[in-house]
Amino acid sequence: MMRVGKMINSRAFGILSISTKSHNYSTSNLNYSTISNHKTSSELGIMVEAKIAPSMLSSDFANLASEAERMLTFGADWLHMDIMDGHFVPNLTIGAPVIESLRKHTKAYLDCHLMVTNPLDYVDQFGKAGASGFTFHVEVSKDNWPELVKQIKSKGMRPGVALKPGTPIEEVFPLLEGEHPVEMVLVMTVEPGFGGQKFMPDMMNKVRTLREKYPTLDIEVDGGLGPSTIDAAAAAGANCIVAGSSVFGAPEPAQVISLLRTSVNKAQKTC
Amino acid sequence: MMRVGKMINSRAFGILSISTKSHNYSTSNLNYSTISNHKTSSELGIMVEAKIAPSMLSSDFANLASEAERMLTFGADWLHMDIMDGHFVPNLTIGAPVIESLRKHTKAYLDCHLMVTNPLDYVDQFGKAGASGFTFHVEVSKDNWPELVKQIKSKGMRPGVALKPGTPIEEVFPLLEGEHPVEMVLVMTVEPGFGGQKFMPDMMNKVRTLREKYPTLDIEVDGGLGPSTIDAAAAAGANCIVAGSSVFGAPEPAQVISLLRTSVNKAQKTC
Repeated sequence: MMRVGKMINSRAFGILSISTKSHNYSTSNLNYSTISNHKTSSELGIMVEAKIAPSMLSSDFANLASEAERMLTFGADWLHMDIMDGHFVPNLTIGAPVIESLRKHTKAYLDCHLMVTNPLDYVDQFGKAGASGFTFHVEVSKDNWPELVKQIKSKGMRPGVALKPGTPIEEVFPLLEGEHPVEMVLVMTVEPGFGGQKFMPDMMNKVRTLREKYPTLDIEVDGGLGPSTIDAAAAAGANCIVAGSSVFGAPEPAQVISLLRTSVNKAQKTC
Repeated sequence: MMRVGKMINSRAFGILSISTKSHNYSTSNLNYSTISNHKTSSELGIMVEAKIAPSMLSSDFANLASEAERMLTFGADWLHMDIMDGHFVPNLTIGAPVIESLRKHTKAYLDCHLMVTNPLDYVDQFGKAGASGFTFHVEVSKDNWPELVKQIKSKGMRPGVALKPGTPIEEVFPLLEGEHPVEMVLVMTVEPGFGGQKFMPDMMNKVRTLREKYPTLDIEVDGGLGPSTIDAAAAAGANCIVAGSSVFGAPEPAQVISLLRTSVNKAQKTC
């Protein structure tokens, strides 16, 4: 397993510090919205902070601990975990036991995207496993999202909602209002289920609509993100960037992560 | 990560040799029933060979490659992979992408137990991922098992059928006859879905019935197996032993694996 050590150590230090704080989401009773990084962001003159989240679906699942460490050293802010149940999507990937094992090796923010038909059934086990973010799909939560968001928060996780390419952005609006709003929207830029697909630029209309309506919301994009597509996503207003093959397949993943972050921060400053 | 090296090296050598051969099941066009270990078994004076299969559900999923290597060094014959979809059972564990990653690190026989509602949908992806054995549940395959077995074989995997504690043994009999029989029966000795449960001795009636009817069949037991329960399972006729917490939780896993094998071989000789 290739390791990168001192090369970008100072950056890694910063990340590990953020990650530790982030993991307070899932292990303490702190009101996590009060410990977000918005202050830092405004000091930098940007509305929302870039979060670069390598998708571990593109990693070596047989060496997840060292793959996670490698990505954090390369500058990752979050680790994106693709949870697929073989029902909501045709693929079956990893579940809570894998999150639980990984948590024992890292304090990183584990950004879990649940591509499952029954997210409510997983809240308790993901909370116990040490997940940080719990993002469920709006398509399967129309009837029970207030209860779902409430339970996710009660287990110390940060609630997010995801939508497939075919789902109109308006469907997530109700989840951003009221007593228990979600704190992140994940706009899928490919059909969920498999890695390595091509970015769908049409989805940027959704991101733009969201960003205009919610200037400080965490908006995540997932699918086909890399050096050739990041500018479109960043310009539309996305700040949380999931990247799989473009990071893991790069000769120098740290450079790609840095490029993604720079693009987001630059776009935010010009908003 | 603790490693055991030279201590039991000669044993490990033998295992790696068997494992390599076993993996021919999934990567070549050989008729795998002709390269089974029956000849060796009969030379040893036993009907069927003991296969000790540590359940990787009890391993550190963040270090699966080294956990697998450790178990093979400890004397494991197979690695048992618990595939759960959160629908057939309440837990979601690992799927084909994890098998695919692990396969890149080991030639071991990957004994996959699919606790899923739709096994037919997974045959192709598990075949491509490098699974060796593909064991599906009889409870969800009553209508399509001939097609399922045929496809499993066509993808170079070895077909097995599993049954839950509440399912009568008679339900698997049809799958052991005809043009495309399964080559292993997995008798669950706990309710499938989670590790660490207590062995159900009543299930030994099923094992006995099977062994009387099929003297050379691979009969696997899974759930609560360890030093205190192996003799009952071995006496009933089980030869493939899945063991999770009793192996991974032991101070000396190699000793437990050896004890399990000795018990099976001793019982086989007295049949």
